[in-house]
Amino acid sequence: MTDTFIDHVNFNQDGLVAAIAQDAKTGRILMMAWMNAEALALTVERGEAVYFSRSRQKLWHKGESSGHSQKVKEIRLDCDGDMICLQVEQLGGIACHTGRESCLYRVLRKGEWQITDDVLKDPSEMYQ
Amino acid sequence: MTDTFIDHVNFNQDGLVAAIAQDAKTGRILMMAWMNAEALALTVERGEAVYFSRSRQKLWHKGESSGHSQKVKEIRLDCDGDMICLQVEQLGGIACHTGRESCLYRVLRKGEWQITDDVLKDPSEMYQ
Repeated sequence: MTDTFIDHVNFNQDGLVAAIAQDAKTGRILMMAWMNAEALALTVERGEAVYFSRSRQKLWHKGESSGHSQKVKEIRLDCDGDMICLQVEQLGGIACHTGRESCLYRVLRKGEWQITDDVLKDPSEMYQ
Repeated sequence: MTDTFIDHVNFNQDGLVAAIAQDAKTGRILMMAWMNAEALALTVERGEAVYFSRSRQKLWHKGESSGHSQKVKEIRLDCDGDMICLQVEQLGGIACHTGRESCLYRVLRKGEWQITDDVLKDPSEMYQ
């Protein structure tokens, strides 16, 4: 038996590893989600991001409802194996469920979180 | 009583929030660590990254041993409040305890994690 790339990932007690999606062109961090071993294997197999939804406790093929899937250009693993970083092409230019490009649309200024990003698409139109 | 920016952070059952450090100039993701409320408050107060070490169960002022501290240029919070992103200037150009620029020094190619980054400084020289 030889080990696979999955064996080098240090999944936590819930069987999950943190996964960051970064826009391959701009370098902007789009979102963080979680993967189990199956989600990671499917991500590699399909070339599209598949996460594990902790709230729904099931695999979540990003974009399955919204169409905003993520084509994966590169996958990296950190030194202690508990973080994956995906370089992605974000279809539709929207990663966040609020209809914004990135989930990181709030910046700390003068002690308050200020919204810096416009909503590009109404969420009610994204999940039909 | 008014709420503070800390109150908008969605700490997990261990009182921690994931924190990503991204190089403010190059956009490269350097590392992921964790913060409790005190670490986040100190990060803002000092303008330098302070994390919470899960292995040592105490505050960890990044660079306190190695000198490789992180000057914080910007702090963002994600949509569901469970991820912080720091834009940083990485002193010494080394974020990883292995002596590399980034903890994400392994890339998946042909089913194997391949090392892409050189060790810039011997770890035995970093922690004296």
